[in-house]
Amino acid sequence: MKVNVVENVLKVNDELAAKVRERLQAAAVSAINFISAPGSGKTTLIECALRNGIGGTAIGVIEGDPDTSLDAERIAALDTPVVQVNTAGGCHLEANLIMRALESFDLESLDLLLIENVGNLVCPVSFDLGETKRVAVVSTPEGHDKPAKYPMLFRVADLVVLNKVDLLPYLDFDEEFFTNAVRKLNPGAPILRVSCRSGEGIGGWREWLRSCVRSTEIVQ
Amino acid sequence: MKVNVVENVLKVNDELAAKVRERLQAAAVSAINFISAPGSGKTTLIECALRNGIGGTAIGVIEGDPDTSLDAERIAALDTPVVQVNTAGGCHLEANLIMRALESFDLESLDLLLIENVGNLVCPVSFDLGETKRVAVVSTPEGHDKPAKYPMLFRVADLVVLNKVDLLPYLDFDEEFFTNAVRKLNPGAPILRVSCRSGEGIGGWREWLRSCVRSTEIVQ
Repeated sequence: MKVNVVENVLKVNDELAAKVRERLQAAAVSAINFISAPGSGKTTLIECALRNGIGGTAIGVIEGDPDTSLDAERIAALDTPVVQVNTAGGCHLEANLIMRALESFDLESLDLLLIENVGNLVCPVSFDLGETKRVAVVSTPEGHDKPAKYPMLFRVADLVVLNKVDLLPYLDFDEEFFTNAVRKLNPGAPILRVSCRSGEGIGGWREWLRSCVRSTEIVQ
Repeated sequence: MKVNVVENVLKVNDELAAKVRERLQAAAVSAINFISAPGSGKTTLIECALRNGIGGTAIGVIEGDPDTSLDAERIAALDTPVVQVNTAGGCHLEANLIMRALESFDLESLDLLLIENVGNLVCPVSFDLGETKRVAVVSTPEGHDKPAKYPMLFRVADLVVLNKVDLLPYLDFDEEFFTNAVRKLNPGAPILRVSCRSGEGIGGWREWLRSCVRSTEIVQ
């Protein structure tokens, strides 16, 4: 009984995600779904890209959180169109919430839509949002064992960001263990070492985002 | 329809949690449910208490993770009875898993049962495990905004541990913002500043655990 209900919820979500995907494709917008534990630095990674720009790419942002509009306020401060989705305690975003949020954007004027999911390494993985790519973010203080212990996300990620590498000198983080675990789960996904504090890897991060834009005529 | 199903799942869980609670009370065992984001340092906090001991208290541990027995191996290395519960991708522990895990312990010989939930700030809050107390753990690199953005856990916690305070010099962590947010959600819960690396706050941490033991005759 329980399994059937979950399957139905996922089926309904998948149908809505297909509609979101169609709507985004029609407007030539690429959507990136950011999934990570709470506090891995997703919002700061997005701020980093917005602050420096990505070759004239027009970016919109959807911020998902159980509560507050703190993250959306940070994005709005960078003059970027943003919608805050509060899940009222819910543990992940779903396609129906994205569908509703899309109404607030002038999609035809956008190239990239960055969707920051609720901080959670488990539940968001099961819910397609109609995205083009999925980014898994892990920060070094979370420990090198996260991909092994929470493998679901890493199997489906198009990119793995290892964030806060500036903290490595103060941690017992075994980077070889981390890299091997990711490679075993997902041999194809690039691993980007990034620090928004020191600037390390930010060039590669902006380059990757730029490679997601559908129409190459838009960027230089 | 969806809400009814969730209510049923929670009702079944609550009934099983009451049985767990009864079983633990009969054996005079206190159970602590550790809830946090992935990588906040729950296992290390438990190791810290085990390594130094708590006045002769007999401790057992249940480790919850989607995958691997990495955490249980760390606890077993400290000669402590431990059961690893793998949720096979599930995002939280439930009372039926605890009920099953209890079979592996000689409960009458234990004083304290430490239950490390799956790393997740949202879902575990809804599932009673029959515990005596709930500990919320937040580590400083996760950021001062976590209680405000994920308020559910902080409303019901008996103790809030601010972990990894040794990293504060390398972070933009606004401790006043953090403390005010916790106080607003839960005026009664103590906030313990802890670092397993520097040893700061470990005395208070062991003291709090000791205060959870039911029979004061057992501890010195």
